[in-house]
Amino acid sequence: MSRDGAPRVGIVGGGQLARMSAAPAAALGIGLRVLATSPDESAAQVINDVALGRHDDLDALLAFADGCDVVTFDHEHVPPAHLEQLEARGIAVRPGPAALFHAQDKVHMRQSLTDIGVPCPRWRVVEALDHIQEFAEDVGWPVVLKTSRGGYDGKGVWVVASPDAAADVLAVPLPPGAQWLAEERIDFVQELSAQVARSPHGQAVAYPVVRTVQKDGICAEVIAPAPGLPENRAVQAQEIALRVAGDLNVTGMLAVEMFDDGYQLYVNELAMRPHNSGHWSIEGARTSQFENHLRAVLDLPLGDPHLVAPYAVMVNILGGDVGNLYSAYRHVLARDPGLKVHLYGKQVRPGRKVGHVTVVGHDLDALVARARHAADYFAGVIDE
Amino acid sequence: MSRDGAPRVGIVGGGQLARMSAAPAAALGIGLRVLATSPDESAAQVINDVALGRHDDLDALLAFADGCDVVTFDHEHVPPAHLEQLEARGIAVRPGPAALFHAQDKVHMRQSLTDIGVPCPRWRVVEALDHIQEFAEDVGWPVVLKTSRGGYDGKGVWVVASPDAAADVLAVPLPPGAQWLAEERIDFVQELSAQVARSPHGQAVAYPVVRTVQKDGICAEVIAPAPGLPENRAVQAQEIALRVAGDLNVTGMLAVEMFDDGYQLYVNELAMRPHNSGHWSIEGARTSQFENHLRAVLDLPLGDPHLVAPYAVMVNILGGDVGNLYSAYRHVLARDPGLKVHLYGKQVRPGRKVGHVTVVGHDLDALVARARHAADYFAGVIDE
Repeated sequence: MSRDGAPRVGIVGGGQLARMSAAPAAALGIGLRVLATSPDESAAQVINDVALGRHDDLDALLAFADGCDVVTFDHEHVPPAHLEQLEARGIAVRPGPAALFHAQDKVHMRQSLTDIGVPCPRWRVVEALDHIQEFAEDVGWPVVLKTSRGGYDGKGVWVVASPDAAADVLAVPLPPGAQWLAEERIDFVQELSAQVARSPHGQAVAYPVVRTVQKDGICAEVIAPAPGLPENRAVQAQEIALRVAGDLNVTGMLAVEMFDDGYQLYVNELAMRPHNSGHWSIEGARTSQFENHLRAVLDLPLGDPHLVAPYAVMVNILGGDVGNLYSAYRHVLARDPGLKVHLYGKQVRPGRKVGHVTVVGHDLDALVARARHAADYFAGVIDE
Repeated sequence: MSRDGAPRVGIVGGGQLARMSAAPAAALGIGLRVLATSPDESAAQVINDVALGRHDDLDALLAFADGCDVVTFDHEHVPPAHLEQLEARGIAVRPGPAALFHAQDKVHMRQSLTDIGVPCPRWRVVEALDHIQEFAEDVGWPVVLKTSRGGYDGKGVWVVASPDAAADVLAVPLPPGAQWLAEERIDFVQELSAQVARSPHGQAVAYPVVRTVQKDGICAEVIAPAPGLPENRAVQAQEIALRVAGDLNVTGMLAVEMFDDGYQLYVNELAMRPHNSGHWSIEGARTSQFENHLRAVLDLPLGDPHLVAPYAVMVNILGGDVGNLYSAYRHVLARDPGLKVHLYGKQVRPGRKVGHVTVVGHDLDALVARARHAADYFAGVIDE
């Protein structure tokens, strides 16, 4: 318990998702503790209750969790056995280890989604090149190869167009416990993300379905709601996300990333935490994904997830050649008084997500142009 | 300097205004330090760079300011001589001592406003009962008596209807350095607040003029924009606030509280910091007063102050009989998924401001009813 009867939420991981949880926690008077590896980590810079330690160190996890009413996550990398240890000691872990394992192991995720009838790209566990060749005879080249564990932001994913290319990928060492997963490559017209918040007592709310634009496997841009998505397909995407949340017993925020090939939807990935595809919700939704994640893991009634304007556009700021993001403010803020900037306090490295910008309003083309301009200026891609 | 070229802002005082500054500081990657008297103070609970000490202790102020790029305020109680000491040592103080003195001494404020031609209630410094009687012969009873220094939230203000009542007030000991100020009582149709942000290089933005409703001298409710206020009078209120900010060289947020008697406006009070009448702006404006205060004192370009919806309504949560505000969440959040709650982490005492709620939308009557219901439920005034 924190003060005055308010609970304390512990977040494993000190990245930007934990950092952006600080604002709704303070507003709601909820205590917030993070487990970070260094006081310089993004969230540790702004949160005053920081436990230092690694997410894969059971003793560090236990010390961190002592005094937390519920433990949740900034990332999916905590070993499942550690989470079971926390639960065995009576600590509420949300999402629970069984649910979270779907976001940790893509083969497990594919099997569970297939079992509950959620549409996926065709997939197969492969152990050798001839398995991939057999699979490609069914689905055609190119084929997508993934490590079942340990991938993120495009890492651990390869698109291979030939047996030779597949053989090169198979030569990459697998992370511990991982398998090779081959998937059909979907020729999509757009990528979507459907986010829901779900609480332990079973209440769930669905956010507007958004378009995500990836560059080099990294989320670059999000438009809420997904432009041109027919109403019935948007509803279908929300139904899929609600079904996944319910059937896999997810608590907290769930992001279901999907391909839309113009005919149907296919689930690509799951994330069980606030997600880059929902950063727009800080200014663009009545209740942000960060607030609803806290409300969900505390089993509080969930907040209204609807848009507050016709459109919200979020563009990530990727590290570029300019190390000093603050120096861009004079130009960027003067040019666009309605722009909302979020910097994560992270060391700038080329291609690293170091912040994002959001704009909210009516004119989609103008919003996209404004957000891209600001992100490009921060990245040093343009200088006026 | 904080990290990566970003500056550090120091806020003197650990109340809810400093607490609510944490969210925009984190978003913008700006370092934030507070000078608080205890780690239990509202802002110290959520900000990780806390200097402990009193605002009237020069050594504590100097130690706190060391490493801050600019010092600003959660309240107006720092002795002017201390602020001059900070400035003499090269520390940027915003607003500066000369400007801030107008918010510290009501006689000085009345004289300056009168000098620059801003409409005020008729006023006079009074030293004895016969001065009050002379003044009342001009302006009529009742008369408003104020201590020129040390008042807040209705304290230090009396409305007296007779010489006997005035004599009782004059028997109250004056705070150090204070004088008695007599003012004409304005028979207003509504009270207004006009907020502006102004930066050292002279950029200023004006927020929509809001209606404030006071109960027992404490702000109870704010409606943005002020309903029924004619456009030309709203513009006049904004012009007055911009003129005051410019002529008194205010930097940061300025709130100008006014009476509207249906014919003209009269300035009542000034506050040179984020103000209760602007809490609605967190969700209701494109740029909150807390963000624009930070941007202004850092001389960054200011953000768009406009409403994001036709109306925003804020109602303060005043401490009641219920000590545990968190226990109200299950009811309040379930009843109204669009409600935004801000609790300040303050010990509940009857009549003390311990939080506020905001709702944003189209239907003013419904918004007012929703916000009042939630605040009353938190206060224990109603139980369903």
